[in-house]
Amino acid sequence: MTSFKDRSLPSSPSTRSGRVVALCGGVGGAKLALGLETIIDAGQLVIVVNTGDDFELLGLRISPDLDTVLYNLAGLSDQARGWGRANETWNFMAALKEFGGESWFSLGDRDLALHVERTRRLHAGETLTGIMRDMARRTGISAELLPMTDEPVRTIVHTVEGDLPFQHYFVKHGCAPAVTGISFSGADDATANPTLMRALADPELTAVVICPSNPFLSIDPILAVPGVRAALQRTAARVIVVSPIVGGQAVKGPTAKIMNELGLSVTSDTIAAHYAGLVDGIVIDSSDAADAASLDIPVHVTQTLMRSAEDKRNLARAVLAFASSMDETPAAAARLTGSTR
Amino acid sequence: MTSFKDRSLPSSPSTRSGRVVALCGGVGGAKLALGLETIIDAGQLVIVVNTGDDFELLGLRISPDLDTVLYNLAGLSDQARGWGRANETWNFMAALKEFGGESWFSLGDRDLALHVERTRRLHAGETLTGIMRDMARRTGISAELLPMTDEPVRTIVHTVEGDLPFQHYFVKHGCAPAVTGISFSGADDATANPTLMRALADPELTAVVICPSNPFLSIDPILAVPGVRAALQRTAARVIVVSPIVGGQAVKGPTAKIMNELGLSVTSDTIAAHYAGLVDGIVIDSSDAADAASLDIPVHVTQTLMRSAEDKRNLARAVLAFASSMDETPAAAARLTGSTR
Repeated sequence: MTSFKDRSLPSSPSTRSGRVVALCGGVGGAKLALGLETIIDAGQLVIVVNTGDDFELLGLRISPDLDTVLYNLAGLSDQARGWGRANETWNFMAALKEFGGESWFSLGDRDLALHVERTRRLHAGETLTGIMRDMARRTGISAELLPMTDEPVRTIVHTVEGDLPFQHYFVKHGCAPAVTGISFSGADDATANPTLMRALADPELTAVVICPSNPFLSIDPILAVPGVRAALQRTAARVIVVSPIVGGQAVKGPTAKIMNELGLSVTSDTIAAHYAGLVDGIVIDSSDAADAASLDIPVHVTQTLMRSAEDKRNLARAVLAFASSMDETPAAAARLTGSTR
Repeated sequence: MTSFKDRSLPSSPSTRSGRVVALCGGVGGAKLALGLETIIDAGQLVIVVNTGDDFELLGLRISPDLDTVLYNLAGLSDQARGWGRANETWNFMAALKEFGGESWFSLGDRDLALHVERTRRLHAGETLTGIMRDMARRTGISAELLPMTDEPVRTIVHTVEGDLPFQHYFVKHGCAPAVTGISFSGADDATANPTLMRALADPELTAVVICPSNPFLSIDPILAVPGVRAALQRTAARVIVVSPIVGGQAVKGPTAKIMNELGLSVTSDTIAAHYAGLVDGIVIDSSDAADAASLDIPVHVTQTLMRSAEDKRNLARAVLAFASSMDETPAAAARLTGSTR
């Protein structure tokens, strides 16, 4: 298992792709998810996305991370802005302000269509899973794009200024208040997406990739859904995390700030420790190569910063090759210590 | 009572405006409503709008006639297109089509803000009356802009191809199927807007103007709400209808087509007969001056076609002057025959 579909190259008759699960949040995760989608056979990639950031605004159900991944994989995302759609206009928001509507969260005119149509279909009784599957199909995405659960899980950020719903912390307060903790309201009562659970239990599963997303805000909500953590511990596939730290900083967002506020060093050591017992290996950026020595799990050092489509594809290839390279090593034994298998 | 506020002229210290009620539907009605608003003192004009065309689309509550009047009075309407907002963009609709959303009814990006915010506020428990009052205030409208009722009334068009909800008849089918009748679902259980009922009962009310809207589709729904017809018969004010017929044709929309299909002649005679017992006088267009002889209620002949702001103001002035001119005539007695007063 060394070759994967590559859309940029003529397909080789000898290629075969394994089934892969990717766990991810928004922007950083979406980039690697796109890289994975471009090299993995249609239907073989299951992308499971954080919904802890979801919220209701103006009566609409917004799923920021799912939409970021959808837009990236569909080629609809705005690369410069980093969120939302390309060729976006903002006339809805301008008019909404005239009418006194809530305007702290920017919704582009094109983006709005997804929220309105999703909300309508949810109210008509469809599941978020079913709706996103259809949206992905309509926009030509070959991967399965899934919410971690169809039940409401809401990330609450505990700060020195009080508890804040995630989007209030992230957008309204611009991540300014110092974080003291994070919790996931509703997670205990949520049911993990059955497609995720089936994929993790599949003996043919090749790899689980934890994308370079914020561990606390993007991946922990997924792990907080009952059964997911245990299923990761039990899976036959190698579990690889791509560290979101590059050169001792987070590429984007409040990851580094939160790590500082929680008294954690902004290093891949902290990331590895965070996922201890869950992952078989970690991929870290070349600029942090010096950290490799202190890590007590297998490490692959490569460029994790993804600026171009090629960067995304290269990182995806490197991660899968790293997982594949472990097949004959005893590395998994360490992860499986204490598991129920 | 011969002078009214005119924004285009320096205000005269001797002006005083009476309280006026206008009943109207969409485009044609909105033009005269705007003319009235420009000459009547702030707070003295009550515009009561048809909500029989209201419907739910994409989970949003759309009130086409109310919005047309709002946009016209707020100076936000698109004059060339005749509906919706000026400087409109259509990126929401384009994206909605990508996601398979219902797209037969065009919602502009700016226009959408009103629907989203109205729907949110309705779901939060506010009345349509309260919401539209606030929207009118926010957009600088000095008149009271009211739905005929806060309860759902839905115009059903009976056609040779079956019964159609109004917007399906009007937009989806482009008014093509021949009309055999019209009914107003929910009207019997609706409560007339209390502000309308108070205004009609006010002994100080100067005039009631039935705007040049489609009598069957725009005014009849208002008259179908229990109590409105009787209150119009009892009101102390003169009730004047402005005929929507110009030169034996309707200016816009399916009025003439429907009149033909219902076996009615497309003349102001038919309009006068339609409102028999309710109106004290009719205003008809100069091009139909020959019809005046056969009308058995007082007639004022003037230009009713409104192309410019001046046309709207002039017609508004003419209508109010016509109502005022009746104060010393016995004309009202004819209308009041058979009333309960």
